[in-house]
Formats: sequence, structure tokens, C-alpha cells
Amino acid sequence: MTNVTIDGERLWGTLMETAKIGGTAKGGIRRLTMSEEDKRVRDWFKAACEAAGCTVTVDTIGNMFARREGKNPDLPPICMGSHLDTQPTGGKFDGILGVLAGLEAIRSLDAIGYQTNAPIEVINWTNEEGARFTPAMMASGAFAGVFTEEYILSRTDREGTTFADAMDAIGYRGDTPLGGRKLGAMFELHIEQGPILEAEDRMIGVVTGVQSIRWFELTITGAAAHAGATPMPARRDALVGAARAIEAVEAVALAHAPDGVGTVGILECRPGSTNVVPGEVFLTIDLRHPLDEVVARMEEDLRARLAEIQGRLEFGLERIWVSPAVHFDPVLIGHVREAAERLGFRHRDIASGAGHDAVYTARICPTTMVFVPCKEGISHNEAEESTFEQCAAGTQVLLNAVLAYDATLEG
Amino acid sequence: MTNVTIDGERLWGTLMETAKIGGTAKGGIRRLTMSEEDKRVRDWFKAACEAAGCTVTVDTIGNMFARREGKNPDLPPICMGSHLDTQPTGGKFDGILGVLAGLEAIRSLDAIGYQTNAPIEVINWTNEEGARFTPAMMASGAFAGVFTEEYILSRTDREGTTFADAMDAIGYRGDTPLGGRKLGAMFELHIEQGPILEAEDRMIGVVTGVQSIRWFELTITGAAAHAGATPMPARRDALVGAARAIEAVEAVALAHAPDGVGTVGILECRPGSTNVVPGEVFLTIDLRHPLDEVVARMEEDLRARLAEIQGRLEFGLERIWVSPAVHFDPVLIGHVREAAERLGFRHRDIASGAGHDAVYTARICPTTMVFVPCKEGISHNEAEESTFEQCAAGTQVLLNAVLAYDATLEG
Repeated sequence: MTNVTIDGERLWGTLMETAKIGGTAKGGIRRLTMSEEDKRVRDWFKAACEAAGCTVTVDTIGNMFARREGKNPDLPPICMGSHLDTQPTGGKFDGILGVLAGLEAIRSLDAIGYQTNAPIEVINWTNEEGARFTPAMMASGAFAGVFTEEYILSRTDREGTTFADAMDAIGYRGDTPLGGRKLGAMFELHIEQGPILEAEDRMIGVVTGVQSIRWFELTITGAAAHAGATPMPARRDALVGAARAIEAVEAVALAHAPDGVGTVGILECRPGSTNVVPGEVFLTIDLRHPLDEVVARMEEDLRARLAEIQGRLEFGLERIWVSPAVHFDPVLIGHVREAAERLGFRHRDIASGAGHDAVYTARICPTTMVFVPCKEGISHNEAEESTFEQCAAGTQVLLNAVLAYDATLEG
Repeated sequence: MTNVTIDGERLWGTLMETAKIGGTAKGGIRRLTMSEEDKRVRDWFKAACEAAGCTVTVDTIGNMFARREGKNPDLPPICMGSHLDTQPTGGKFDGILGVLAGLEAIRSLDAIGYQTNAPIEVINWTNEEGARFTPAMMASGAFAGVFTEEYILSRTDREGTTFADAMDAIGYRGDTPLGGRKLGAMFELHIEQGPILEAEDRMIGVVTGVQSIRWFELTITGAAAHAGATPMPARRDALVGAARAIEAVEAVALAHAPDGVGTVGILECRPGSTNVVPGEVFLTIDLRHPLDEVVARMEEDLRARLAEIQGRLEFGLERIWVSPAVHFDPVLIGHVREAAERLGFRHRDIASGAGHDAVYTARICPTTMVFVPCKEGISHNEAEESTFEQCAAGTQVLLNAVLAYDATLEG
């Protein structure tokens, strides 16, 4: 295996050039899936990959695959990639780095005429963000057989436009059948979207998997009453109950430190008047931990604590979503860790707190991810920022891990 | 002084008959000020008072005065009354009982040809609720010189209609000048709108005044962050801060038991997504106690507790409204207490937690109130309910107190 060095300047150039497509005044990107901006970045990506000698195919839900052949055409492709769509006020790196790093890897291989054993494919998954059409990670999920093609095509945005119509409007319904073929491996480079790597001054996150997640909705029912005329002991204040529930969620997370997290993200308080004791509160609860069994214990803990604090209020807790932990492929994880090690980058193992396309590809092929830091953990925000050095380091680790894995295959 | 007995059946009949004007399917009333329904109930009230021998005048902001002359035309009138407008989904008693009890008192005096020393007036104050046009208690406030006539006339509802236009549309702009004349006394019968009388099985509340009120807005600023990728120690969760603030408000009230109350009635949480740690929360705080100096101490206590819990969050507390305590006239309070006592009704002294037109009349004439229980303290709600016996008892106490006061005047 020869050393192949990526060109950080060239990579950064592609990041900054494509950031203009849907670029916002505050330095972010608005590039909703299947929008005019999405078409323009797809056109750019297709042209760049073809210029790098790749064959670009598009499947029937718009997923794009840029293929560079290897020595052995019988091997399934080793894949890199992520997504080029963004949140409505998204940043320049979330998803995009993973796709453009793949392009940079191809260009670097081309530069020295490096021939891999397996074919290499760089993938742009459609609609990872789920911002215009839900659910998120829709197209990688469909590729992995989680969603049917009919389901995807019939999804509608808030204006009532179907995904199929939006895709046809920008001409990105391809003719390659969806899924049904083997991927040899998937490596996804991504910004961390959390503060851990920056806080610990690590350049690389060796991603071992994705956290186990459970979502709940809690409806608290008390009795609306006049804020002036109702003595404290006579009240059934749903918002005071909610305050205790919020603190219970925090306590559950802290009881499962350091990896447990718990969040109340939405809270609605009714009737919502300064001089009325709230009679009803709706809130959401998000519990996560790298291990399924710990999240299950966190749920038990939560239920016990809520039972203790409910008093004369009614607490209706409903579990609305369970996303089991994903454990990435140990062999691929090893290649990433070794690449970071050899390149001299400070690194740590980390479980992703966010969902990624890699969650779905892990169902159908060996998969792992590489994380690089982002400033203050800020993401899904125009202020999202990773440095030139971080992007280059992640891309070099990505390529080295891919080549190390490729070297284990028959040429 | 002769005994004058009110007719409970007749009173109840007027309550149920007028409840049809704007009556809702759930047994409440929707009778917004200066609406078509308001016109109909005003027409009904005017006709009923004239049939009872009163002269009805209307001032330039729609306040209605039904006058029954007394022996001594030089005395200022002894007034009873409240308001006939309701909340959008209001009940059948709030305000209405006070006006119709005045009408019933007049009818009872007529029935035995009782002649008072002072003239008696029954008042229907315009727009006590403040539901269509703010502020509440607008027209009694203007009568008392708190608001100017120009200010009242220019108030607009959510559709942009001015109060003046709405009033003209139903023909209730009268020609009697606003205010500028002496009222001898004001007695307002009202439902409690709280649970105390019912809980203690008292028929009559002898209202000594209205609580001192302070309103605050609290803005809590933390940092929005990914709910999966942000470890607990790295968070600046504005909603966790809000939970502690809600509990601090409760603690402040409990520290000033039994009369102190504290309420967080509105809470808005941003950005409001299940998987995002809230970065900003806005909430309102309402503190009340019968004594101004205690509310001032409650504010100090609140500020100290908030300073303790704010940690790495920013707490911006702004006091937006101060309503000093109102202390009703001791002589009138004495007449109410004695009337309840002589009639054999269980009673207690009570400070009103809610605002009433009596708050403003107390600025210009001796004023007091009589409370009767309402079921579970529920008010501003179609389920609002007081019984036949409670309405009749309150009306009898009202009339007896008026006559006792009248007996102290020169005929």
C-alpha cells in the first residue's frame, strides 16, 4: 500500500465553492433537498466526478453514485459519502464534508494513478436532513430496505408537493434501480455536531456506533385556575409538575453519566395566560446512551421518578420512538483508529449522538464513520464551523482507512 | 329600616333568561363587549330597569346607570353593579350576578314600596373583561379618571375595529358625560372565582380589598445544542433553568403562606425541537399578597433565589406591572359583615385575588364587594357555576348592606 496524500487546499476549495450554492448572508447554506439549489450542487458534483474519471449513476430516488473502477470488477465497491442537502439555515460542513472528502480521495488517487483492488464509490444520499420531506435519512433508509420506494415517492412537503414531483422538477429521478446490490463497505466522514472532540482537543473521533435513542411524549393534566384567587395548596399546577419532570429527566441522565443524556426539547403550556395557573402541559423527552440496555434502564428510572412526583396531577407518558443502538463494524473501526494513530492525530472513540446515513448502511454492509471537531459543537446552524486543518485531517484518515481496508482484499 | 326580602326565583330567572343571549352549547356565554350579543343584553337590561321605574342613562363610553330616586335628591347615589360582558368562552355568573342582583334589589324595593334616603343606581360597566379590547376594567377606570376618554375610544380589537366604532355599531354611545359626578358608595356582588369559600363551606365572602400584584417577565438564555451529541456537563439548557425558576416561584409563594401566591402562567421554549437542547425560554411570573409590603419582600426573595440558580445561564428579569393593594371602605365592609351575620350565613373575610371594577371605584367613593362561592373556583370558563342558594344569599346580603348604609344617611 502506497501513501496517498490528499490535497487540503483543493478540498477546502471545493467546500467553499459549493457553499456558494444556496449560500446565506450569515455564511451558512440553505439547500433543501430537491430544490433548485440542490439541482445546482448535484450538477456540480456530477461534473466534478466525471472530470475525475468516474461514472455517475442516479437511482430512482435521486441517490448519486460516482464510481471509480478497481482491479477486481467482481468485488463490491468500497463507499465513501454522506449528503449535500442542508437544513433551512444549515452550515457548510454537515454532510457536505463527507461527500467532498470522497471526491478529494478520488482526485488524490488519480493524481498518482493509484489502483485500488475494489471499485470506489462516492455517494450523495438524497434528503438526509429530513427538513423538507420527513423522515430524515430517507433515501439511505430506502436503499437499505427500511422504507419502500412508493413511500418515499409519496412523501409531501408543507406546500403539498410530493417528493416524486420535486425530484422530477429538477430532473434527478435516475434510472438505476433502488438498492438491490451489494456494497462492500461504507465510510462516512462527518463533523461531530457535538462539543466533545473540541473540548478534549482531539482531531479525530473514531466512531464506534450510534447511540440508542428513545423518545417520549408527556402530557401533564392539572386544573387551570385563577392565579390570584387560588391558594397554593388548592392548586393542581401542570407547569409546576412539568418543572419537576424536567428535573427528573436531568437526574436520569446524570445517574447514567458520563454517556447518558436526557433532554426536554419541546414544552407547550396551556392555557397560557399570565394570570391563569396552567392546567395542561405537553413536553417531549429524548433519552440516549450508547447501549440499548442502559437506555432501557433510563426509561425505568424515568417512569419511577415521574410516579414519585406526579402527586395530584395526571401524567400520561407515551413512548413514541425507539431507535436501537448501532454498532459499527469492528474491522472498519480498527482501520480508522489505526489511520488516526499512524498520522499522529489525537483521537478518541466516540458514539454518535446524531443519526446519519451510516445508521442505515450498517444494516446492509460493514460501515463506520470518522468525526472531526466543529466549533463549540454548533451544527444545524449557519454558524457551523470546522477548520481547514480539521477537514483535511478527517479526509486523510478517511482515505487511509479506505486504502487499508482495500489492501485486505484480493486484487 | 324595614326588612326587604329579595325573590330568589325571580333573580335566578333573570340569570337564566339573559344567559341565552350569547349562550353556548356547553352552558356558558360568549358576549364580548360591544358585540351584537352585548347590544341585546343591554337592551334587555334597559327595558327591565325602566319597567322597574328606573331612569336609565348611558355615558359616552357605554356605561349604563339605572337610577331609582330616594327621599333626598341631594345625596349622591348608592350604587350596585358589575358588568354584563363575558370572556370568549365565559360563564353565566362572572359580573352578570352583580348587575342582575342590583336589578333584583330594585324590584324588591318596589314590591313593598320601600323608599331609600339616597338614590339607588344599578351600574353595568362596559368591558370589564378586556377580552375584545384591552385593558380590562377599562370603563370603570375611565369613570374614575384613570384612563382618558380618547384613550378608551381609540382602543382596537384584533380585527382593527376601534372601540368607538364598535360602540357606535350597536348604538350604545350615550350622551351622559363620562364621570365628573359623585357616587355615594359602591357595592359589587361577584362570584369568588377561587376555591376558598367552597372549601371552607362559607356562603359569603366579606371582601376587605384586592391583593397587591406584581408581574414579571423572565428571559433565560442558554445555548441551543444537539440533544444527542452534547454531554450533560457541556449544556447550558435554558429549560432546565426555567424548571428551577418555576420551583423558585412556588417556593417564594409558600414562604409567604397562607396568603402569598405565585404563578408562572406563560412559558415559551425555543427553538422547540425534540432533539435540540433549548437555548432560550421566556416565562411570566405573577406574585400576589393582600399587603404591598409582603409582595415587595416576595420580589426580593424571588430575585435572591433566581441569582442562586442561574449558574451559567443568563436570567433577565423585568418587572412589567405593579398593582398596589386596594383596601375597601371599613364602614361598608362592616355593613356587609353584619348583614351576613344577621342572616345567619357562614362567612369569612377575604381579599380578592382578581381585579374588579370595584378596584377603580374605590378611588372615587367608598367601595366594597360581596363574594359568593363558585364550584371548584372555576371561572372564565363555560363550566363556571354558582347555585340558586348562593346567588340568592349574596343578593340578600348585598341589599341588606345597602339598606343599612342608607339608614345612616339623612332622609
